[in-house]
Amino acid sequence: MVGAGPIGLAIAWRCAARGLRVVVHDPAPGSGASAVAAGMLSPVAEAYFGERQLTGLLLASAARWPAFADELTEASGVELGYRTEGTLLVGLTADDLAEARRLWAYQQGLGLPVTPLRPTELRDREPALAPRVRGGALASTDHQVDPRLLVPALRTAAQRAGAVLAPQAVRSLSDVDARVTVVAAGCGAAALTGLPVRPVKGQILRLRAPGGAAPGFRHVIRGYADGEQVYLVPRADGEVVLGATVEERSDTTVTAGAVLRLLRAGVDLLPELAEYDLVETVAGLRPGTPDNAPILGPLPARPDVLAATGHHRHGIVLTPITADLIADLVTTGVADPLLTPFHPGRFAAAGPDPTNAAGRLAGPGAADVGAPDRTTEEDLWS
Amino acid sequence: MVGAGPIGLAIAWRCAARGLRVVVHDPAPGSGASAVAAGMLSPVAEAYFGERQLTGLLLASAARWPAFADELTEASGVELGYRTEGTLLVGLTADDLAEARRLWAYQQGLGLPVTPLRPTELRDREPALAPRVRGGALASTDHQVDPRLLVPALRTAAQRAGAVLAPQAVRSLSDVDARVTVVAAGCGAAALTGLPVRPVKGQILRLRAPGGAAPGFRHVIRGYADGEQVYLVPRADGEVVLGATVEERSDTTVTAGAVLRLLRAGVDLLPELAEYDLVETVAGLRPGTPDNAPILGPLPARPDVLAATGHHRHGIVLTPITADLIADLVTTGVADPLLTPFHPGRFAAAGPDPTNAAGRLAGPGAADVGAPDRTTEEDLWS
Repeated sequence: MVGAGPIGLAIAWRCAARGLRVVVHDPAPGSGASAVAAGMLSPVAEAYFGERQLTGLLLASAARWPAFADELTEASGVELGYRTEGTLLVGLTADDLAEARRLWAYQQGLGLPVTPLRPTELRDREPALAPRVRGGALASTDHQVDPRLLVPALRTAAQRAGAVLAPQAVRSLSDVDARVTVVAAGCGAAALTGLPVRPVKGQILRLRAPGGAAPGFRHVIRGYADGEQVYLVPRADGEVVLGATVEERSDTTVTAGAVLRLLRAGVDLLPELAEYDLVETVAGLRPGTPDNAPILGPLPARPDVLAATGHHRHGIVLTPITADLIADLVTTGVADPLLTPFHPGRFAAAGPDPTNAAGRLAGPGAADVGAPDRTTEEDLWS
Repeated sequence: MVGAGPIGLAIAWRCAARGLRVVVHDPAPGSGASAVAAGMLSPVAEAYFGERQLTGLLLASAARWPAFADELTEASGVELGYRTEGTLLVGLTADDLAEARRLWAYQQGLGLPVTPLRPTELRDREPALAPRVRGGALASTDHQVDPRLLVPALRTAAQRAGAVLAPQAVRSLSDVDARVTVVAAGCGAAALTGLPVRPVKGQILRLRAPGGAAPGFRHVIRGYADGEQVYLVPRADGEVVLGATVEERSDTTVTAGAVLRLLRAGVDLLPELAEYDLVETVAGLRPGTPDNAPILGPLPARPDVLAATGHHRHGIVLTPITADLIADLVTTGVADPLLTPFHPGRFAAAGPDPTNAAGRLAGPGAADVGAPDRTTEEDLWS
């Protein structure tokens, strides 16, 4: 196992619990994208045009989260901050709301539970929302967890199940002596495997309600504010995560412009944030892929090497299903059909970057190239 | 000596250089307001209505800065980042410019060198200014120094001259065994002396030009931007200090609202700042006084205790003159007439807070109560 982020640790936990001998190589466990992640479990709000197979996987994994959280807390003794108040989707201006409604209509068309709310209903749920907010909807099944609690919990559970953490960095797959090697190294997977995983920079802020109080809102809030898309994730201890930029950059500097845009949008949506302490500004690198979907399964030329990377914005929500399916594959040698659309071979077949293949149109469906889309609305939400 | 900020260290240096035995008590030298200060030497831009005596002192101290900087660098071996490009005063909108011009007219009325610039002249000097900036002026004699270089330089110079730094905190004046005790403890002076020194919170940001470059501007820029007053101080190493809030609070938390307001104003004035790294967000406490002027001289009831505190926004610019005049007073026992308006007794005579005294009108001149204002225009700029 290469990589001790949530994905690697969860696979290690599952494999060790099945009696396999597991060594997890990572000089800095939990220091990758998960250290910056907000921990939204948002298959509904993140069901985007042209990503129906990914949406299916997100929904299937989110459905496993409640049991996964219970089991992990039982195994580790660590509470994960798993919260089920749901997610409010809001638009600040009429233009923002029009853009949001276009996506909500698509999501409703997939049969997903996005419930439009009248402004009075919105304010009944979250009185702290700015009076300017023009409208919104509720995604009641989109929950949240705290990634900074998740990683230590997984580490404890994996170690209690018998997994060993090795601090040596893996520079090459030949450094690893194992029957099966799982590469769950996030952005580091590119150098190890040649897979098209690229860093996608995200900057986020952590605020804290003044005086040790809980935040003045309970739902995760995802909003469009004058064209900016931001989210606000409240934690019981007073923390609020405000994010995130999506930048095609590989540095982790925090820039004045990004902080300005995040704060402006956040304060426009929820004015009381202006009085919150700004306690952290940080940037991380998501492992992105050409079709925004993860890469799960054996490398075409190395069946003993399994990729579990490329989770992009979805690493936390996809942790349970990735762990289950990869552990199944390691122990049985048989790939679950759920894995088929996410096979590492899909990029080799379609060229280095199938989304840019000549002659293809951009727009809904364009990112699904390279694998047939068999998902139906029933599949998505059953 | 109580307090090893710039004021305390400079007095210690001057006193030790005259052969006095000096012990400076401070558990954390340089950790007060100076660690957050921008280091503007701005007697002209900070010549505000109703503060003519203070303006006179600021001008007199700024005039000593070039020689002081040379002497200190000679004594310490430390370059101070003393820069003489001058300060540009700008207004973003027509309203901002109208407000700025009212102050510039007052400053010109005092005979101070504030030179209005045409927009083309403004952009010739700083092409990075936003095209929106409506107008400006040059205060060519308002310079800058880096307070984070100043403190170590003063510490070295004071120690080389024979001053001893003692890390014990002073809780009461009875803890100090000396012929003369100088209280240069910033906000801490209130508890030690009963003087009306109160904390005035300031939040500032430190940005850094990307890629190790120098900032894309050379002048200190002080601007009004949609009603916010901010300053931008460029350093040779790429740092830009962006400040500052002025808040009647005694905490040092950094708030989302303050960072938002500073960044918005800064980026509106100088758009390239959006691409700068945000490397530090920090708050400090200035030692404020009822009339915004420092408190310099013997306590009425304790002629052996000299106050050198209450420097508010002006601690860096006032360092040379404070050091010279207090060292004179310690060695000769005679107070320079320059100190008269700043005597600690002025508050006792006028009550606890003369600016709030019943029957007085607010506005220009109101803050000068308690001492006659004999400053003339000629005095100010001779």
